Amino acid sequence: MRFLASRVRSHLVFNHCFYRLHFRMASSSTTVKKDAFPFDKQRLEGTLLNRFFYAPAFEIYGGVAGLYDYGPPGASLQANIINEWRKHFIIEEHMLELDTTIMTPAPVFETSGHVARFMDWMVKDSQTGDVLRADHLVKNVLEARLAGDKEARGLAVQPPVDDKDKKKKVKKVKGKVGVKLEDEVVAEYENILAQLDNYTGLELGELCRKYKITNPDTDNEVSEPQPFNLMFASSIGPTGQHPGYLRPETAQGHFMNFSRLLSFNNGKLPFASAQIGRSFRNEISPRAGLLRVREFTMAEIEHYVDPEDKTHERFHEVRDVELDLLPRDVQSSGNTKVTRMTVGEAVKKGIIANETLGYFVARIYLFLTKIGINPARLRFRQHMKNEMAHYACDCWDAEIHNSTGWTECVGCADRSAYDLTVHSKKTGIPLIASQQLEEPIVIEKEVVQFNKRTLGKMFGKELPVIQNIVNDMDEVSLQKLKGELAQGVATIVSSEGREFKLTPDLLTIERQTIKQSIREYTPNVIEPSFGLGRILYCLLEHSFWSREQDVERVVLSLPPIIAPTKVLIVPLSTKRFDHLVRDVSSKLRKSGVFSSVDDSNQSIGRRYARNDALGTPYGVTLDFASLQKGTMTLRERDTTEQLIGPIDEVIAVVTELVQGTIDWAEARQRLPAYDGVQALD
Amino acid sequence: MRFLASRVRSHLVFNHCFYRLHFRMASSSTTVKKDAFPFDKQRLEGTLLNRFFYAPAFEIYGGVAGLYDYGPPGASLQANIINEWRKHFIIEEHMLELDTTIMTPAPVFETSGHVARFMDWMVKDSQTGDVLRADHLVKNVLEARLAGDKEARGLAVQPPVDDKDKKKKVKKVKGKVGVKLEDEVVAEYENILAQLDNYTGLELGELCRKYKITNPDTDNEVSEPQPFNLMFASSIGPTGQHPGYLRPETAQGHFMNFSRLLSFNNGKLPFASAQIGRSFRNEISPRAGLLRVREFTMAEIEHYVDPEDKTHERFHEVRDVELDLLPRDVQSSGNTKVTRMTVGEAVKKGIIANETLGYFVARIYLFLTKIGINPARLRFRQHMKNEMAHYACDCWDAEIHNSTGWTECVGCADRSAYDLTVHSKKTGIPLIASQQLEEPIVIEKEVVQFNKRTLGKMFGKELPVIQNIVNDMDEVSLQKLKGELAQGVATIVSSEGREFKLTPDLLTIERQTIKQSIREYTPNVIEPSFGLGRILYCLLEHSFWSREQDVERVVLSLPPIIAPTKVLIVPLSTKRFDHLVRDVSSKLRKSGVFSSVDDSNQSIGRRYARNDALGTPYGVTLDFASLQKGTMTLRERDTTEQLIGPIDEVIAVVTELVQGTIDWAEARQRLPAYDGVQALD
Repeated sequence: MRFLASRVRSHLVFNHCFYRLHFRMASSSTTVKKDAFPFDKQRLEGTLLNRFFYAPAFEIYGGVAGLYDYGPPGASLQANIINEWRKHFIIEEHMLELDTTIMTPAPVFETSGHVARFMDWMVKDSQTGDVLRADHLVKNVLEARLAGDKEARGLAVQPPVDDKDKKKKVKKVKGKVGVKLEDEVVAEYENILAQLDNYTGLELGELCRKYKITNPDTDNEVSEPQPFNLMFASSIGPTGQHPGYLRPETAQGHFMNFSRLLSFNNGKLPFASAQIGRSFRNEISPRAGLLRVREFTMAEIEHYVDPEDKTHERFHEVRDVELDLLPRDVQSSGNTKVTRMTVGEAVKKGIIANETLGYFVARIYLFLTKIGINPARLRFRQHMKNEMAHYACDCWDAEIHNSTGWTECVGCADRSAYDLTVHSKKTGIPLIASQQLEEPIVIEKEVVQFNKRTLGKMFGKELPVIQNIVNDMDEVSLQKLKGELAQGVATIVSSEGREFKLTPDLLTIERQTIKQSIREYTPNVIEPSFGLGRILYCLLEHSFWSREQDVERVVLSLPPIIAPTKVLIVPLSTKRFDHLVRDVSSKLRKSGVFSSVDDSNQSIGRRYARNDALGTPYGVTLDFASLQKGTMTLRERDTTEQLIGPIDEVIAVVTELVQGTIDWAEARQRLPAYDGVQALD
Repeated sequence: MRFLASRVRSHLVFNHCFYRLHFRMASSSTTVKKDAFPFDKQRLEGTLLNRFFYAPAFEIYGGVAGLYDYGPPGASLQANIINEWRKHFIIEEHMLELDTTIMTPAPVFETSGHVARFMDWMVKDSQTGDVLRADHLVKNVLEARLAGDKEARGLAVQPPVDDKDKKKKVKKVKGKVGVKLEDEVVAEYENILAQLDNYTGLELGELCRKYKITNPDTDNEVSEPQPFNLMFASSIGPTGQHPGYLRPETAQGHFMNFSRLLSFNNGKLPFASAQIGRSFRNEISPRAGLLRVREFTMAEIEHYVDPEDKTHERFHEVRDVELDLLPRDVQSSGNTKVTRMTVGEAVKKGIIANETLGYFVARIYLFLTKIGINPARLRFRQHMKNEMAHYACDCWDAEIHNSTGWTECVGCADRSAYDLTVHSKKTGIPLIASQQLEEPIVIEKEVVQFNKRTLGKMFGKELPVIQNIVNDMDEVSLQKLKGELAQGVATIVSSEGREFKLTPDLLTIERQTIKQSIREYTPNVIEPSFGLGRILYCLLEHSFWSREQDVERVVLSLPPIIAPTKVLIVPLSTKRFDHLVRDVSSKLRKSGVFSSVDDSNQSIGRRYARNDALGTPYGVTLDFASLQKGTMTLRERDTTEQLIGPIDEVIAVVTELVQGTIDWAEARQRLPAYDGVQALD
C-alpha cells in the first residue's frame, strides 16, 4: 500500500521539486524561465558515477552487492553533512560525543536481543540455490501481477520513467504480464501488500504456496522461509573462543558506557551521547543503490531521560515547527494522507507521546531541510505496533520521498528502559541514575527477610535461586506469597519452571514504612538515528535538474554549506594567470573558503557546466580584465547570473555568500551585473 | 637493542619534555618555577580513565583485549586531530578524499598478498592452550633474564618508574631473577634481541628450544610457532559463498579506485588520494593500551607518481626542515644514534631516496609537531631490508618516544608499483597512467607475430597459454627465442613448468622500429600512513605533567587547536549568573569558539584544576564584578596567570588566542593582569 501510494504521489512531488527550485531562484530576485522537465534517474546515476560521487566498491573485481565507495565529491559532501550534523546536534546541545568500537563480543548482542531477533526471512530457489528475501519476493511478484492485471484491463500501467529496473522485473514474470485477475484476487493481493511488514516466516511461506509465488528469475519454486541474522559474524583473537559481530547500529556502544557518561555529566540527567560511525548489516540481496547497503555511516543520539519527566527545556524553541505527520491510527485505517500540524499541537494532542520525542522530531526536520532536503518530500511516519524493532516502544521515522517511493532515513525511537535494563540484569552492574529528593518520600512496602541458615540446610546451593525468585517479585506477588505462608506452605516457581516449597520458618515478609531521600531509576532513552548514505542520496535526487535549454547540462543545486567545493576558480587560460589563481586561492583559504581550480583548456562555459554537475555554487573567472583592471567576475550556479568587481571585493562578497550571512539578492546589491554573461555562458 | 637503547634515552627525554614545557611558558614571558618531577604513567592512566578520554570497550562485560572506546574528551581530541590532518594534508595539497568500505571480498587481499603474508607467529602453552605471540615471548623472556643478570652482577636494574608491568614480568620468571649469566650468553641474548624482527617462525621455534623459553605465566613449554593471519574474517551475503575480510589498512580501497581517481584528476599525475577510516588487525595478544589495538582509526595518503620522476614541486618549501634520522646502514652497524640533518641534505646525500619521499617525511614532521608532539622525542627510522612489509621497497617510520620506548606512529613507505601491478594482472584491467610525449620516441624492439591458425591446429585450447608465455617475455628472452627458432626448434616453459616446442611456422619474431607518442606506465605509490590512536596516546604522554606544589594537580598542556574544549566558562555560583553564562557562551560560539560551562558548586580553583586535566587551555570567570562592572577574567592553563577586561574585549582576545593569531604574551599586552589570582587559585 505504501508503495502504491508513493506511485500516486510522484506527480505532486515533481511539482514540489519545482517549487523548491523556483523558490531558491526567486529568492535571488531573478526569474528563471523554465518549463517542466522530467526527473531522469538514469541521467542522475550517470552523473554521480561519472563525477565519482560514489561507485560500486571493488568494481575491478566485479563488485559486491551493497558495498559502495565514495569518491572525492561524495566523500566531501558526506564530510560536510557530518560537520553540519555535529554543529546542529552535538555542539548546539552540548551532547557527549563517543567513538566506540565496531567489533563487538557476542554476549553483548545476545543480551540486546540482536542475536535472536535481528533478522530477515530468506527463501532459496529449489534448483539454483539462489537466495531471495522472502518479503521482497512476495512484494515484487504480487505487484507485478497487479500491474499485469491493470494492463489486461486496459488501464494505463506506464512503468515510471525514473525506474527502469521495475520495468524489467514486470517483464520477467513470464506469462503474468497482461493477465487479468479476478476482482477478489486483486483485493487479496492489495490487502497482503498493505500489511507485508506483519507476516512471520511461516506466513510468508504459506503465501508463497497459496499464490504459487516462484523465483521470477527462474520460475522455480522456493524453499520454506528461513531466518537469516543480519549481523556479520567474526571471531576475536587467535583461539576462536571469542565470537564477535560487527555492530548493526552504534547504540550498544553508548549503553556500554552509560555509567561513565553519567559520571562525566556530574550525575545529572537528562543528557545525550552522540556518535558518528560505521555500521554493518549483511542484507540478503541489496539492490537499491545507496538506499540499502551492507556497510554504512550512521549518526546516532541516545538521549537519557527520567521516565517520569519527558518534558524538554528547549521545547518552546520548536513548538511552532510545522510537520507532515502520518500517525499510526491513520495508517491502520488504510490511509496514507499526512496531517500537517505544529509539533506543539501534536504533543498536546498526544499524537507524539511527549515533549522530548517531539523536540527531536522537530530538530530532525530542521536539520534535514537546512542541508537541502525538500520539505514537501519529507514526512514523519509513526511505526505500527507490530513493525517496531524489538527494543522500541514508540518510533517516528523521517521518511524522504525519492524515485523509489518513501524511504526511512532517520528513525526517532523511544527505546524506553529496554537496553539499560537487559544489560544491567545480564552483567549484574547497575545502570541507573539517582535523584536527590527535595523531600524524602515515605512509602510502605513488603520487606523480605530470609532465614539463610535454615534455607541453606534445606536447599543447599539452590539458595540463590530461591532468593532471586522472591527478590524479583512485585508487591502483589509478595502479598500473595505472604498469604500462602500464613496458611503454612507456599509454592514458588523459577523462570525455568522448577517448583520450590517454602514454609514460614524459611523467610518472613513484613510490611514496613521506609523513608527514601534518594530516588533511583533506570533512564529511558530517546534515540534519533540517522542513515547518512540514504539522506545523501535523497539530497542528490532533490537537488538534481537539467537546464531547459540543454538537457545534458545537469545541475546539482546543493546548498553552499554542504556543497563539496564552494568556489571554482576559472582562469581564461593556463600559464598567464597562474599567479592570480594562487593569489585568489590563498585569499579565499584565509577567509575559510575552500576553492578548487579548473585550468583545463576547455571553454569557460564548459568548465562551469562541469562544476554545476558537482554542485559548486559559485565560480570566479580570471581574464584579461583581471590583469589589466584587477577585476573578477562572480557567477551563481542556479541562475548562471554573473557579477563583476575588484578582486578583493568579490572575495569578500563570495565569502559572505558561502558563510550564509548574505544571499544572492544582496550580492547583486553589492556588485554590478556583468554583461558578458551570454558570451561566456 | 632498540628497547635497551630507549631505556638509556629516557633521561634525555625527560629533559626534553621539560624543555618543551619551559619553552611554551617562556614564550608567554613568564618564568614558571618548577623542579624536575617524575613522569608517572599510572597517574596519567588514572586521569585518562577518570576523565573518560578512553576506556576499555565492553568493560561491563569484562572487556576484550585491544578494543577501546573514546569518551567525550578523547573523541573530541581525535576529531580535532583529524580536522587538523585534513587541513594540513587534504586541503593544503588538494588531495582527493575517499571513503571506501571496510568489508572487503577475499580475492582483493589474496591478490595484494595479505592472505598469504599478513601474519604473526604464535605459540601455544602446551598445558593451558594459552596463545602467545612468538617474537614477543622471546623478547620478554630474554630481556627478563638479562635484567636478572644485571641484578646478580650488582648493577642497578631499577625497573623504570613509569612501567609497573615490566616489573611484574621480571618477577614472574621464576628462578631467573638475580641469576647471573655467562658473558657469552649475555652477548648471544643481546644479539638475538637486536635482530628479533628478522626471524622466521622456524627460527623462533629453535630459539625457544635452544634457550628453554617457556610461558612465563605457567613455566610450561610452548608449541612450535604457527602462522596466524591478522585479518578478521567474515562472510558476505547469506550463502556463505563470499568470504570477506575487514581491511587491515585503507590502502587497497584507494588502489581499487585508481582509474576513477586518475580520470577525476583529468588524467594528470602526480596526485594523491587520502582517506581517514577504521581498520582492523586481529592481534594475537594485545597488551599495550592504545599502542596496540585490534580496531583503530588511520589516515592514509597514496601519492601516485611517475617512477621516472620522483621530484616534488613543493620540495623547496620543506628543504630546510631539520630531522632526527636513523638510516638503515646506521642500524645495521648496531647503532641507534640519530643523525640530525635537513631534509634537503638527506635527499641530496641519498639517505632519503627521493624528493617526494623527503617531502612527505618533512610534512609528517610538521604535522606532528604542530599538534603538540615533542620534536625532541620524534625520530625517523628507516626500515631494515628484511623488516619491510611485503609491498614496500623503502620505508621510513616516524617513531615517537613514550614510556614504552620508541613506537612507530606513522609509516612513510614507497610501495613502488606493487599493488597496481598485482591488481591489474589479476583482474586484467589496466591500472596505468599515460603521458603525451612532447616528441615521439623512436625505439627498436622485437615484435612477435603469431600464426594463429597453425598454432591453433597444433595446440588447440592451449593457444592462449603459449601466447601468454611469449607475450610476457622481455627483450633478452625474445632474442634468445628468436635465435632458437632460427635453429629450427625452440622450447618454452609455462610458469607451472609445462614445456611446449615451437617451430618457425608457428610464429615470427622481427626487430622493428616503433614510434611512440604516448608513454604508458604504472605509477609508483608513496604512502604516508598514520595510526591516529598511537599519535593521540603519545601526545597525551608528552602533554602530561603535575604542578610542583601539588602532584595531584595534573595538567594536559594540549595546544589550543586540538584541545577538546577551548574555553571553560566558570560562573561564581549557579543561578545569578545564568544569563551572563548564556550570553558569553553564545558570543563565543558566534566567533567560532566552542566553550563548556562548569557550574558545579565546587570552588573556582577546583573547577579550573578539573579542566586543566582535560587540557582546556583558557578559562573565563564570571563573578560579581561581571554583574557590576561588566568585566571577566581570563586564565591561561599552563601558567595559571589571569588577565581581566570588559567581557567583549576578553571574548575578542580569547578568540584570537584560540585561532592562534596571537599568543599569551600578546594577550598580556592587550589586557591588564588580574591580581586576585592568588586568592582564586
